[in-house]
Amino acid sequence: VIAAVALPGVPEVRPGDDLAALLADAAARAGGLEPRDVLCVAHKVVSKAEGRVVRLADVEPGEQARRWGAAWDRDPRQIQVVLDEAAEVVRAEGPGRLICRTRHGFVCANAGVDRSNAGGDDLAILLPVDPDASARRLRAELGCAVVVTDSFGRPWRIGQAEIAVGCAGLVPVDDWRGRSDRDGHELQATMIAVADQAAAAADLARGKDRGEPAVRLRGLGAHVTDDDGPGAAALVRALDQDLFR
Amino acid sequence: VIAAVALPGVPEVRPGDDLAALLADAAARAGGLEPRDVLCVAHKVVSKAEGRVVRLADVEPGEQARRWGAAWDRDPRQIQVVLDEAAEVVRAEGPGRLICRTRHGFVCANAGVDRSNAGGDDLAILLPVDPDASARRLRAELGCAVVVTDSFGRPWRIGQAEIAVGCAGLVPVDDWRGRSDRDGHELQATMIAVADQAAAAADLARGKDRGEPAVRLRGLGAHVTDDDGPGAAALVRALDQDLFR
Repeated sequence: VIAAVALPGVPEVRPGDDLAALLADAAARAGGLEPRDVLCVAHKVVSKAEGRVVRLADVEPGEQARRWGAAWDRDPRQIQVVLDEAAEVVRAEGPGRLICRTRHGFVCANAGVDRSNAGGDDLAILLPVDPDASARRLRAELGCAVVVTDSFGRPWRIGQAEIAVGCAGLVPVDDWRGRSDRDGHELQATMIAVADQAAAAADLARGKDRGEPAVRLRGLGAHVTDDDGPGAAALVRALDQDLFR
Repeated sequence: VIAAVALPGVPEVRPGDDLAALLADAAARAGGLEPRDVLCVAHKVVSKAEGRVVRLADVEPGEQARRWGAAWDRDPRQIQVVLDEAAEVVRAEGPGRLICRTRHGFVCANAGVDRSNAGGDDLAILLPVDPDASARRLRAELGCAVVVTDSFGRPWRIGQAEIAVGCAGLVPVDDWRGRSDRDGHELQATMIAVADQAAAAADLARGKDRGEPAVRLRGLGAHVTDDDGPGAAALVRALDQDLFR
Protein backbone atom coordinates (compact mmCIF):
# COMPACT_ATOMS: atom_id res chain seq x y z
CA VAL A 1 0.00 0.00 0.00
CA ILE A 2 1.29 3.42 -0.91
CA ALA A 3 -0.13 6.53 0.72
CA ALA A 4 0.49 10.06 -0.52
CA VAL A 5 -0.36 13.03 1.65
CA ALA A 6 0.31 16.71 0.98
CA LEU A 7 1.95 18.47 3.91
CA PRO A 8 -0.33 21.22 5.20
CA GLY A 9 0.63 24.81 5.80
CA VAL A 10 4.01 25.21 4.12
CA PRO A 11 4.36 29.01 4.04
CA GLU A 12 5.49 31.06 1.05
CA VAL A 13 9.23 30.42 0.79
CA ARG A 14 11.72 33.29 0.36
CA PRO A 15 15.43 33.35 -0.49
CA GLY A 16 17.48 32.34 2.52
CA ASP A 17 14.62 30.59 4.31
CA ASP A 18 15.45 27.38 6.15
CA LEU A 19 13.39 25.11 3.92
CA ALA A 20 14.14 21.94 5.90
CA ALA A 21 12.77 23.58 9.04
CA LEU A 22 9.63 24.76 7.23
CA LEU A 23 9.06 21.26 5.81
CA ALA A 24 9.70 19.59 9.17
CA ASP A 25 7.13 21.89 10.79
CA ALA A 26 4.57 21.08 8.13
CA ALA A 27 5.31 17.35 8.40
CA ALA A 28 4.84 17.49 12.16
CA ARG A 29 1.26 18.64 11.55
CA ALA A 30 0.71 15.49 9.45
CA GLY A 31 2.19 12.94 11.84
CA GLY A 32 5.87 13.54 11.08
CA LEU A 33 8.41 11.88 8.84
CA GLU A 34 9.79 8.36 9.19
CA PRO A 35 13.16 7.16 7.88
CA ARG A 36 11.55 5.11 5.09
CA ASP A 37 9.25 7.91 3.93
CA VAL A 38 9.89 9.67 0.65
CA LEU A 39 9.27 13.41 0.72
CA CYS A 40 8.63 14.86 -2.73
CA VAL A 41 9.30 18.60 -2.86
CA ALA A 42 8.42 20.84 -5.79
CA HIS A 43 11.64 22.40 -7.03
CA LYS A 44 10.10 25.86 -6.86
CA VAL A 45 10.37 26.08 -3.09
CA VAL A 46 13.88 24.61 -3.21
CA SER A 47 14.92 27.15 -5.83
CA LYS A 48 13.35 30.02 -3.89
CA ALA A 49 15.10 29.02 -0.66
CA GLU A 50 18.39 28.76 -2.57
CA GLY A 51 17.92 32.17 -4.16
CA ARG A 52 17.59 30.77 -7.70
CA VAL A 53 15.22 33.58 -8.60
CA VAL A 54 15.87 36.22 -11.24
CA ARG A 55 14.34 39.69 -11.31
CA LEU A 56 13.52 40.45 -14.95
CA ALA A 57 14.34 44.14 -14.36
CA ASP A 58 17.95 43.04 -13.89
CA VAL A 59 18.15 41.14 -17.20
CA GLU A 60 19.66 42.63 -20.36
CA PRO A 61 18.31 40.68 -23.34
CA GLY A 62 20.80 39.84 -26.08
CA GLU A 63 20.34 39.78 -29.83
CA GLN A 64 18.71 36.33 -30.09
CA ALA A 65 16.35 36.96 -27.18
CA ARG A 66 15.26 40.28 -28.69
CA ARG A 67 14.66 38.65 -32.06
CA TRP A 68 12.54 35.81 -30.66
CA GLY A 69 10.78 38.18 -28.28
CA ALA A 70 9.71 40.39 -31.16
CA ALA A 71 8.69 37.44 -33.35
CA TRP A 72 6.62 35.83 -30.59
CA ASP A 73 5.42 38.98 -28.80
CA ARG A 74 7.03 37.79 -25.58
CA ASP A 75 9.21 39.45 -22.98
CA PRO A 76 12.77 39.20 -24.40
CA ARG A 77 14.19 39.33 -20.87
CA GLN A 78 12.41 36.08 -20.00
CA ILE A 79 13.79 34.50 -23.16
CA GLN A 80 17.27 35.66 -22.15
CA VAL A 81 16.88 33.95 -18.78
CA VAL A 82 15.97 30.74 -20.59
CA LEU A 83 18.97 31.03 -22.92
CA ASP A 84 21.23 31.64 -19.92
CA GLU A 85 19.99 28.40 -18.33
CA ALA A 86 20.18 26.33 -21.53
CA ALA A 87 23.19 24.32 -22.60
CA GLU A 88 21.46 23.81 -25.94
CA VAL A 89 18.20 24.81 -27.59
CA VAL A 90 16.81 21.50 -28.84
CA ARG A 91 13.75 22.91 -30.60
CA ALA A 92 12.35 26.44 -30.87
CA GLU A 93 8.69 25.52 -30.64
CA GLY A 94 7.55 29.10 -31.05
CA PRO A 95 5.29 31.40 -28.99
CA GLY A 96 7.48 31.56 -25.90
CA ARG A 97 8.33 27.88 -25.82
CA LEU A 98 11.91 26.75 -26.21
CA ILE A 99 12.69 23.07 -25.70
CA CYS A 100 16.15 23.15 -24.15
CA ARG A 101 18.75 20.86 -22.72
CA THR A 102 19.77 22.29 -19.36
CA ARG A 103 23.27 22.08 -17.94
CA HIS A 104 22.03 19.17 -15.79
CA GLY A 105 21.14 17.35 -19.02
CA PHE A 106 17.36 17.67 -18.63
CA VAL A 107 15.42 18.26 -21.83
CA CYS A 108 12.40 20.42 -21.00
CA ALA A 109 10.45 23.51 -21.95
CA ASN A 110 12.19 26.83 -21.28
CA ALA A 111 15.15 25.17 -19.57
CA GLY A 112 13.04 24.81 -16.45
CA VAL A 113 12.54 28.56 -16.08
CA ASP A 114 9.07 29.30 -14.77
CA ARG A 115 7.19 32.44 -13.91
CA SER A 116 4.01 30.93 -12.45
CA ASN A 117 3.81 31.01 -8.64
CA ALA A 118 7.16 32.80 -8.70
CA GLY A 119 6.14 35.06 -5.86
CA GLY A 120 5.98 38.19 -7.98
CA ASP A 121 5.11 39.25 -11.49
CA ASP A 122 8.66 40.39 -12.26
CA LEU A 123 10.29 37.16 -11.10
CA ALA A 124 11.43 33.99 -12.85
CA ILE A 125 12.39 30.84 -10.99
CA LEU A 126 15.30 28.71 -12.18
CA LEU A 127 16.04 25.07 -11.44
CA PRO A 128 18.45 24.51 -8.55
CA VAL A 129 22.10 24.53 -9.64
CA ASP A 130 22.51 20.94 -8.40
CA PRO A 131 19.12 19.45 -7.49
CA ASP A 132 20.67 16.18 -6.28
CA ALA A 133 22.77 18.17 -3.82
CA SER A 134 19.62 20.02 -2.76
CA ALA A 135 17.92 16.66 -2.14
CA ARG A 136 20.91 15.39 -0.18
CA ARG A 137 20.91 18.46 2.06
CA LEU A 138 17.19 18.12 2.77
CA ARG A 139 17.59 14.38 3.43
CA ALA A 140 20.36 15.07 5.94
CA GLU A 141 18.11 17.48 7.82
CA LEU A 142 14.79 15.64 7.53
CA GLY A 143 15.98 12.06 7.96
CA CYS A 144 13.94 10.58 5.13
CA ALA A 145 14.37 10.09 1.38
CA VAL A 146 13.85 13.25 -0.65
CA VAL A 147 12.86 13.80 -4.28
CA VAL A 148 12.99 17.28 -5.82
CA THR A 149 10.43 17.49 -8.62
CA ASP A 150 9.42 19.50 -11.66
CA SER A 151 6.72 19.05 -14.27
CA PHE A 152 8.04 18.24 -17.73
CA GLY A 153 6.21 17.95 -21.02
CA ARG A 154 6.62 14.88 -23.16
CA PRO A 155 7.33 14.99 -26.90
CA TRP A 156 4.53 12.64 -27.97
CA ARG A 157 2.01 13.11 -25.21
CA ILE A 158 -0.24 15.95 -24.17
CA GLY A 159 0.18 17.43 -20.72
CA GLN A 160 2.96 17.53 -18.21
CA ALA A 161 3.98 14.84 -15.76
CA GLU A 162 6.00 15.45 -12.63
CA ILE A 163 9.49 13.97 -12.69
CA ALA A 164 12.50 13.82 -10.38
CA VAL A 165 15.15 16.49 -10.97
CA GLY A 166 16.88 15.63 -7.71
CA CYS A 167 16.84 12.60 -5.46
CA ALA A 168 18.57 11.30 -2.32
CA GLY A 169 17.98 8.11 -0.39
CA LEU A 170 15.69 6.59 -3.02
CA VAL A 171 16.66 4.19 -5.81
CA PRO A 172 16.12 6.36 -8.89
CA VAL A 173 15.97 3.46 -11.35
CA ASP A 174 15.07 -0.10 -10.42
CA ASP A 175 17.05 -2.20 -12.89
CA TRP A 176 15.42 -5.55 -13.66
CA ARG A 177 17.56 -6.38 -16.66
CA GLY A 178 18.88 -9.92 -16.52
CA ARG A 179 16.14 -11.04 -14.13
CA SER A 180 13.47 -13.42 -15.37
CA ASP A 181 9.73 -13.04 -15.71
CA ARG A 182 7.27 -15.57 -14.34
CA ASP A 183 7.67 -17.72 -17.46
CA GLY A 184 11.45 -17.82 -16.98
CA HIS A 185 11.82 -15.49 -19.97
CA GLU A 186 14.53 -12.89 -19.51
CA LEU A 187 13.17 -9.38 -18.99
CA GLN A 188 14.86 -7.33 -21.65
CA ALA A 189 14.20 -3.68 -21.13
CA THR A 190 12.74 -3.36 -17.71
CA MET A 191 14.26 -0.45 -15.89
CA ILE A 192 11.64 1.22 -13.76
CA ALA A 193 11.98 4.97 -13.25
CA VAL A 194 11.04 4.77 -9.57
CA ALA A 195 11.91 8.36 -8.67
CA ASP A 196 9.96 9.78 -11.61
CA GLN A 197 6.95 7.65 -10.74
CA ALA A 198 7.21 8.79 -7.13
CA ALA A 199 7.18 12.39 -8.32
CA ALA A 200 4.09 11.70 -10.44
CA ALA A 201 2.28 9.98 -7.59
CA ALA A 202 3.04 12.89 -5.29
CA ASP A 203 1.77 15.41 -7.80
CA LEU A 204 -1.67 13.78 -7.75
CA ALA A 205 -1.90 14.46 -4.02
CA ARG A 206 -1.19 18.18 -4.05
CA GLY A 207 -3.16 21.19 -5.13
CA LYS A 208 -1.10 23.38 -7.44
CA ASP A 209 -3.19 26.40 -6.43
CA ARG A 210 -3.32 25.56 -2.74
CA GLY A 211 0.35 26.11 -2.01
CA GLU A 212 1.17 22.48 -1.29
CA PRO A 213 4.73 22.02 -2.50
CA ALA A 214 5.55 18.91 -0.47
CA VAL A 215 3.99 15.45 -0.42
CA ARG A 216 4.94 12.57 1.84
CA LEU A 217 4.88 9.11 0.26
CA ARG A 218 4.72 6.15 2.58
CA GLY A 219 5.05 2.55 1.43
CA LEU A 220 8.08 2.86 -0.84
CA GLY A 221 10.45 1.49 1.78
CA ALA A 222 11.70 -1.25 -0.54
CA HIS A 223 13.30 1.44 -2.70
CA VAL A 224 14.64 3.58 0.16
CA THR A 225 18.39 3.26 0.68
CA ASP A 226 20.78 3.78 3.56
CA ASP A 227 22.94 6.16 1.55
CA ASP A 228 22.14 9.08 -0.75
CA GLY A 229 22.62 6.96 -3.86
CA PRO A 230 23.30 8.20 -7.41
CA GLY A 231 20.52 10.77 -7.44
CA ALA A 232 18.29 11.84 -10.31
CA ALA A 233 21.40 12.29 -12.45
CA ALA A 234 21.05 8.53 -13.03
CA LEU A 235 17.78 9.24 -14.85
CA VAL A 236 19.39 11.46 -17.48
CA ARG A 237 20.00 9.69 -20.77
CA ALA A 238 23.50 10.30 -22.05
CA LEU A 239 23.78 12.68 -24.98
CA ASP A 240 25.26 9.96 -27.22
CA GLN A 241 22.14 7.84 -26.61
CA ASP A 242 19.75 10.60 -27.66
CA LEU A 243 18.07 9.32 -30.82
CA PHE A 244 16.17 12.57 -31.34
CA ARG A 245 18.95 15.12 -31.59
CA VAL B 1 -4.67 11.59 0.62
CA ILE B 2 -4.19 9.08 -2.14
CA ALA B 3 -3.93 5.38 -1.40
CA ALA B 4 -2.74 2.79 -3.89
CA VAL B 5 -3.27 -0.89 -3.22
CA ALA B 6 -2.50 -3.84 -5.50
CA LEU B 7 -5.42 -6.24 -5.81
CA PRO B 8 -4.39 -9.65 -4.47
CA GLY B 9 -4.79 -12.95 -6.23
CA VAL B 10 -5.62 -12.02 -9.81
CA PRO B 11 -5.09 -15.37 -11.57
CA GLU B 12 -3.19 -15.87 -14.81
CA VAL B 13 -5.50 -14.49 -17.51
CA ARG B 14 -6.23 -16.46 -20.71
CA PRO B 15 -7.94 -15.50 -23.96
CA GLY B 16 -11.69 -15.36 -23.48
CA ASP B 17 -11.54 -14.99 -19.70
CA ASP B 18 -14.05 -12.65 -18.09
CA LEU B 19 -11.47 -10.12 -16.89
CA ALA B 20 -14.01 -7.87 -15.18
CA ALA B 21 -15.20 -10.81 -13.06
CA LEU B 22 -11.62 -11.77 -12.15
CA LEU B 23 -10.85 -8.18 -11.16
CA ALA B 24 -14.08 -7.83 -9.17
CA ASP B 25 -13.23 -11.02 -7.25
CA ALA B 26 -9.75 -9.72 -6.47
CA ALA B 27 -11.12 -6.32 -5.45
CA ALA B 28 -13.61 -7.98 -3.11
CA ARG B 29 -10.66 -9.45 -1.21
CA ALA B 30 -9.30 -5.91 -0.73
CA GLY B 31 -12.52 -4.25 0.43
CA GLY B 32 -14.20 -3.81 -2.96
CA LEU B 33 -14.43 -0.96 -5.43
CA GLU B 34 -16.24 2.34 -4.94
CA PRO B 35 -17.64 4.56 -7.70
CA ARG B 36 -14.91 7.18 -7.22
CA ASP B 37 -12.05 4.67 -7.20
CA VAL B 38 -9.67 4.44 -10.14
CA LEU B 39 -8.63 0.93 -11.07
CA CYS B 40 -5.36 0.82 -13.02
CA VAL B 41 -5.00 -2.38 -15.02
CA ALA B 42 -1.82 -3.45 -16.81
CA HIS B 43 -2.66 -3.79 -20.49
CA LYS B 44 -1.17 -7.26 -20.56
CA VAL B 45 -4.12 -8.86 -18.82
CA VAL B 46 -6.54 -6.83 -20.94
CA SER B 47 -4.77 -7.93 -24.11
CA LYS B 48 -4.68 -11.56 -22.98
CA ALA B 49 -8.40 -11.59 -22.17
CA GLU B 50 -9.12 -9.99 -25.55
CA GLY B 51 -7.01 -12.55 -27.37
CA ARG B 52 -4.41 -9.99 -28.50
CA VAL B 53 -1.69 -12.64 -28.30
CA VAL B 54 0.35 -13.90 -31.24
CA ARG B 55 2.04 -17.29 -31.45
CA LEU B 56 5.41 -16.73 -33.10
CA ALA B 57 5.15 -20.13 -34.81
CA ASP B 58 2.28 -18.65 -36.84
CA VAL B 59 4.28 -15.63 -38.04
CA GLU B 60 5.97 -15.49 -41.45
CA PRO B 61 8.70 -12.82 -41.32
CA GLY B 62 8.99 -10.55 -44.35
CA GLU B 63 12.08 -9.14 -46.02
CA GLN B 64 12.68 -6.22 -43.62
CA ALA B 65 12.11 -8.36 -40.49
CA ARG B 66 14.57 -10.98 -41.76
CA ARG B 67 17.18 -8.32 -42.51
CA TRP B 68 16.94 -6.69 -39.07
CA GLY B 69 16.71 -10.07 -37.38
CA ALA B 70 19.97 -11.16 -39.00
CA ALA B 71 21.71 -7.84 -38.28
CA TRP B 72 20.66 -7.81 -34.61
CA ASP B 73 20.66 -11.58 -33.95
CA ARG B 74 17.00 -11.43 -32.96
CA ASP B 75 13.99 -13.54 -33.84
CA PRO B 76 12.74 -12.11 -37.17
CA ARG B 77 9.21 -13.31 -36.37
CA GLN B 78 9.08 -11.04 -33.33
CA ILE B 79 10.28 -8.13 -35.46
CA GLN B 80 7.54 -8.92 -37.97
CA VAL B 81 4.92 -8.76 -35.21
CA VAL B 82 6.26 -5.31 -34.27
CA LEU B 83 6.14 -4.12 -37.88
CA ASP B 84 2.57 -5.42 -38.19
CA GLU B 85 1.58 -3.32 -35.16
CA ALA B 86 3.45 -0.19 -36.23
CA ALA B 87 1.96 2.59 -38.30
CA GLU B 88 5.47 4.03 -38.62
CA VAL B 89 8.98 3.14 -37.47
CA VAL B 90 10.18 6.36 -35.83
CA ARG B 91 13.72 5.18 -35.02
CA ALA B 92 15.44 1.84 -35.48
CA GLU B 93 17.44 1.89 -32.27
CA GLY B 94 19.12 -1.41 -33.01
CA PRO B 95 19.46 -4.68 -31.09
CA GLY B 96 15.79 -5.59 -31.08
CA ARG B 97 14.50 -2.15 -30.29
CA LEU B 98 12.31 -0.29 -32.74
CA ILE B 99 10.76 2.97 -31.65
CA CYS B 100 7.39 2.93 -33.43
CA ARG B 101 4.24 4.94 -33.71
CA THR B 102 1.34 2.56 -33.21
CA ARG B 103 -2.00 2.85 -34.96
CA HIS B 104 -3.34 4.43 -31.76
CA GLY B 105 -0.70 7.15 -32.14
CA PHE B 106 1.47 6.00 -29.23
CA VAL B 107 5.21 6.34 -29.74
CA CYS B 108 6.91 3.51 -27.87
CA ALA B 109 9.45 0.72 -28.12
CA ASN B 110 8.47 -2.23 -30.31
CA ALA B 111 4.98 -0.84 -30.97
CA GLY B 112 3.92 -2.09 -27.56
CA VAL B 113 4.67 -5.72 -28.43
CA ASP B 114 6.05 -7.54 -25.40
CA ARG B 115 7.20 -11.08 -24.74
CA SER B 116 7.83 -10.85 -20.98
CA ASN B 117 5.12 -12.40 -18.80
CA ALA B 118 3.35 -13.38 -22.02
CA GLY B 119 2.29 -16.72 -20.59
CA GLY B 120 4.58 -18.76 -22.82
CA ASP B 121 7.96 -18.52 -24.47
CA ASP B 122 6.48 -18.62 -27.99
CA LEU B 123 3.98 -15.82 -27.34
CA ALA B 124 3.97 -12.08 -27.93
CA ILE B 125 1.38 -9.76 -26.43
CA LEU B 126 0.02 -6.84 -28.43
CA LEU B 127 -1.67 -3.69 -27.20
CA PRO B 128 -5.48 -3.84 -27.21
CA VAL B 129 -7.01 -2.77 -30.54
CA ASP B 130 -8.85 0.08 -28.79
CA PRO B 131 -7.63 0.45 -25.19
CA ASP B 132 -10.14 3.23 -24.45
CA ALA B 133 -12.96 0.87 -25.43
CA SER B 134 -11.39 -1.80 -23.21
CA ALA B 135 -11.40 0.69 -20.34
CA ARG B 136 -15.02 1.64 -21.01
CA ARG B 137 -16.12 -2.00 -20.96
CA LEU B 138 -14.34 -2.65 -17.67
CA ARG B 139 -15.76 0.54 -16.19
CA ALA B 140 -19.29 -0.51 -17.15
CA GLU B 141 -18.82 -3.84 -15.37
CA LEU B 142 -16.83 -2.68 -12.35
CA GLY B 143 -18.58 0.61 -11.63
CA CYS B 144 -15.43 2.67 -11.09
CA ALA B 145 -12.99 4.63 -13.25
CA VAL B 146 -10.54 2.45 -15.17
CA VAL B 147 -7.09 3.16 -16.61
CA VAL B 148 -5.38 0.63 -18.88
CA THR B 149 -1.62 1.04 -18.56
CA ASP B 150 1.66 0.19 -20.24
CA SER B 151 5.25 1.10 -19.46
CA PHE B 152 6.86 3.41 -22.01
CA GLY B 153 10.43 4.58 -22.31
CA ARG B 154 11.19 8.29 -22.60
CA PRO B 155 13.56 9.75 -25.19
CA TRP B 156 15.71 11.76 -22.77
CA ARG B 157 15.34 9.81 -19.58
CA ILE B 158 16.51 6.42 -18.41
CA GLY B 159 13.94 3.83 -17.44
CA GLN B 160 10.30 3.29 -18.19
CA ALA B 161 7.34 4.98 -16.60
CA GLU B 162 3.83 3.59 -16.64
CA ILE B 163 1.36 5.62 -18.71
CA ALA B 164 -2.31 5.42 -19.66
CA VAL B 165 -3.06 3.72 -22.98
CA GLY B 166 -6.76 3.56 -22.16
CA CYS B 167 -8.99 5.45 -19.76
CA ALA B 168 -12.67 5.74 -18.87
CA GLY B 169 -14.35 7.77 -16.14
CA LEU B 170 -11.20 9.73 -15.27
CA VAL B 171 -10.18 13.15 -16.58
CA PRO B 172 -7.12 12.26 -18.69
CA VAL B 173 -5.73 15.81 -18.81
CA ASP B 174 -6.52 18.51 -16.27
CA ASP B 175 -6.30 21.72 -18.27
CA TRP B 176 -5.31 24.73 -16.19
CA ARG B 177 -4.57 27.06 -19.09
CA GLY B 178 -6.16 30.44 -18.65
CA ARG B 179 -6.43 30.03 -14.89
CA SER B 180 -4.24 32.18 -12.65
CA ASP B 181 -1.56 31.27 -10.18
CA ARG B 182 -1.48 32.60 -6.63
CA ASP B 183 0.23 35.80 -7.81
CA GLY B 184 -2.54 36.40 -10.33
CA HIS B 185 -0.11 35.49 -13.12
CA GLU B 186 -1.72 33.47 -15.90
CA LEU B 187 -0.62 29.84 -15.93
CA GLN B 188 0.67 29.32 -19.41
CA ALA B 189 1.38 25.70 -20.05
CA THR B 190 -0.18 23.82 -17.21
CA MET B 191 -1.97 20.76 -18.48
CA ILE B 192 -1.59 17.95 -16.01
CA ALA B 193 -1.49 14.44 -17.42
CA VAL B 194 -3.67 13.02 -14.65
CA ALA B 195 -4.22 9.59 -16.19
CA ASP B 196 -0.51 9.08 -16.88
CA GLN B 197 0.34 10.10 -13.33
CA ALA B 198 -2.31 7.74 -12.00
CA ALA B 199 -0.72 4.93 -14.02
CA ALA B 200 2.71 5.80 -12.59
CA ALA B 201 1.39 5.92 -9.02
CA ALA B 202 -0.26 2.53 -9.47
CA ASP B 203 2.91 0.99 -10.85
CA LEU B 204 4.75 1.80 -7.62
CA ALA B 205 2.23 -0.30 -5.68
CA ARG B 206 2.48 -3.52 -7.66
CA GLY B 207 5.10 -6.20 -7.93
CA LYS B 208 5.92 -6.93 -11.56
CA ASP B 209 7.07 -10.43 -10.60
CA ARG B 210 4.24 -11.10 -8.19
CA GLY B 211 1.45 -11.19 -10.73
CA GLU B 212 -0.28 -8.03 -9.57
CA PRO B 213 -1.72 -6.47 -12.71
CA ALA B 214 -4.35 -4.28 -11.04
CA VAL B 215 -4.04 -1.47 -8.52
CA ARG B 216 -6.87 0.44 -6.90
CA LEU B 217 -6.28 4.17 -6.39
CA ARG B 218 -8.47 5.93 -3.87
CA GLY B 219 -8.51 9.69 -3.35
CA LEU B 220 -8.67 10.84 -6.98
CA GLY B 221 -12.40 11.51 -6.80
CA ALA B 222 -11.96 15.12 -7.92
CA HIS B 223 -10.88 13.81 -11.33
CA VAL B 224 -13.48 11.03 -11.61
CA THR B 225 -16.31 11.82 -14.01
CA ASP B 226 -19.90 10.68 -14.44
CA ASP B 227 -19.30 9.71 -18.06
CA ASP B 228 -16.54 7.79 -19.82
CA GLY B 229 -14.90 11.00 -21.06
CA PRO B 230 -12.48 11.36 -23.95
CA GLY B 231 -10.18 8.53 -22.88
CA ALA B 232 -6.43 8.26 -23.18
CA ALA B 233 -6.72 9.26 -26.83
CA ALA B 234 -6.77 12.82 -25.45
CA LEU B 235 -3.20 12.27 -24.26
CA VAL B 236 -1.84 11.57 -27.74
CA ARG B 237 -0.09 14.54 -29.29
CA ALA B 238 -1.25 15.13 -32.84
CA LEU B 239 1.19 14.16 -35.56
CA ASP B 240 1.42 17.74 -36.83
CA GLN B 241 2.56 18.86 -33.35
CA ASP B 242 5.38 16.32 -33.19
CA LEU B 243 8.58 18.38 -33.14
CA PHE B 244 10.79 15.30 -33.28
CA ARG B 245 9.66 13.60 -36.47
